[in-house]
Amino acid sequence: MTHVARELASQPDCWQRAAGMADGLAEQLPAAGERIAVVGCGTSYFMAQAYAALREGSGQGETDAFAASEFPAGRRYDRIVALSRSGTTTEVLGLLAQARGTTRRTVVIGDPDTPMAALADDTVVLDFADEKSVVQTRFATSALTLLRAHLGLHTDAVVEDAQVALAEPLPAGLVECGQFTFLGQGWSVGLANEAALKMREAALAWTEAYPAMEYRHGPISISTRSTATWMLGEAPSGLSDEVHATGARWVAGGLDPLAELVRVQRLALAIADARGLDPDRPRHLTRSVILSTA
Amino acid sequence: MTHVARELASQPDCWQRAAGMADGLAEQLPAAGERIAVVGCGTSYFMAQAYAALREGSGQGETDAFAASEFPAGRRYDRIVALSRSGTTTEVLGLLAQARGTTRRTVVIGDPDTPMAALADDTVVLDFADEKSVVQTRFATSALTLLRAHLGLHTDAVVEDAQVALAEPLPAGLVECGQFTFLGQGWSVGLANEAALKMREAALAWTEAYPAMEYRHGPISISTRSTATWMLGEAPSGLSDEVHATGARWVAGGLDPLAELVRVQRLALAIADARGLDPDRPRHLTRSVILSTA
Repeated sequence: MTHVARELASQPDCWQRAAGMADGLAEQLPAAGERIAVVGCGTSYFMAQAYAALREGSGQGETDAFAASEFPAGRRYDRIVALSRSGTTTEVLGLLAQARGTTRRTVVIGDPDTPMAALADDTVVLDFADEKSVVQTRFATSALTLLRAHLGLHTDAVVEDAQVALAEPLPAGLVECGQFTFLGQGWSVGLANEAALKMREAALAWTEAYPAMEYRHGPISISTRSTATWMLGEAPSGLSDEVHATGARWVAGGLDPLAELVRVQRLALAIADARGLDPDRPRHLTRSVILSTA
Repeated sequence: MTHVARELASQPDCWQRAAGMADGLAEQLPAAGERIAVVGCGTSYFMAQAYAALREGSGQGETDAFAASEFPAGRRYDRIVALSRSGTTTEVLGLLAQARGTTRRTVVIGDPDTPMAALADDTVVLDFADEKSVVQTRFATSALTLLRAHLGLHTDAVVEDAQVALAEPLPAGLVECGQFTFLGQGWSVGLANEAALKMREAALAWTEAYPAMEYRHGPISISTRSTATWMLGEAPSGLSDEVHATGARWVAGGLDPLAELVRVQRLALAIADARGLDPDRPRHLTRSVILSTA
């Protein structure tokens, strides 16, 4: 069994544990009314997108998500929340160093013994969800679950859905598809982006991701009978008909969108297996991107 | 000659005309210091991203870009700027109707005789840049040029670069590549997204787009000797070396990023031609997305 297969299967347990931490972290995590920027790179950026939409949508305050490298210099926030499994990502470290003394900095990391902890005002460690894999699964989804629970938006039903996602067979025919498109709305847009990244990293597959309503504004043109279009969460009216009309396979994600992501993680491993790839050794990737300071 | 080929070739003239309008529109376009949301769908959304980064980066005020369907309900802006070639896009019309009486609404459209004009407080018409094509080129780039000129950021050098982009041969070997990735930083992230959309719509090609620094955080895994990785604008330190190490072709976009987009539009048509596609008839697309009200 690969590291990534073992780690993704542990998500229901990790989520329960992460959700259970939320009440004890009220002092460390964003207060209602604060204006927040959530930052990360790669997978962590997509979790930031999901959390930002959840938080603002629940009326807790303006919440923006940025790739750490694209943070708009000069914009003022009450707090920066940084997500980083490794605690070593160059762009996030640079941003936190710049914000010292002007903006409260909260970090959610997998390993307390990293440079990022020294650059934070509040440190949340999810060491039980840290991973051996290069390809992230449980750390990212556990961090999001903690933040979701802190907003009062996590329930046991999410964990049960994840168990279903792990137990049920994947929809027939998906592994054979040649192109995959993931769609979301609101907070599930970030999950759709992360679903696509898993498919690229682990399965080297042609994968796209969009806000669901944007799919009709151009991206639908690439759909064929070999495409799987997978909606995370409830679909906009009429969209499934338009996807069917292209000949593509429509996958209606009926589980909680975070549990749907677990199904996609499994699909990525199944495709890797079918293509003879080792998902523990993704091409051209390292566990953390640390740039040399030129 | 296809409509889209004729229209994309007219961009230097259209841009000059659009830039020349900026001084006369000081009353209609955003004032310095206003907090602005720029919205659109598809290509217009990507132009909104580019303009938002240009405006905020030039110190004119906070500027956010949203796909019209993902506008965060309840957030307050001084003004909404909507971009829409057709003036009929369902999601944009809905957003403008909701904002009536609470937020100033400025629209940039191709045809004055459309429902969007009736939902606007300020209407800017670029009828000379309207198009017959489904696949947008000159309307979008002319709208961005007008907005850029209004910020004082357009120069004749941009038009000259577009002329170079039209006159020079495309880099050898690009048409034969199997995968295309476009990278941007700051305002050119939106242009990279639009470059990718042209490749999908006109050439049905496997194409991705990212903020340049995000490319290392996962997406680089899909790169092979058959990939072209094309940077719009100046590249981050060390990135070209990492792309070369994957075997991929590195295209360093030395022109103004908007002129680089013209080169990509030409590449999309060249690939369509090589693949026997008619870029005037993109698959599954219509000129404007008008949804039935269920």
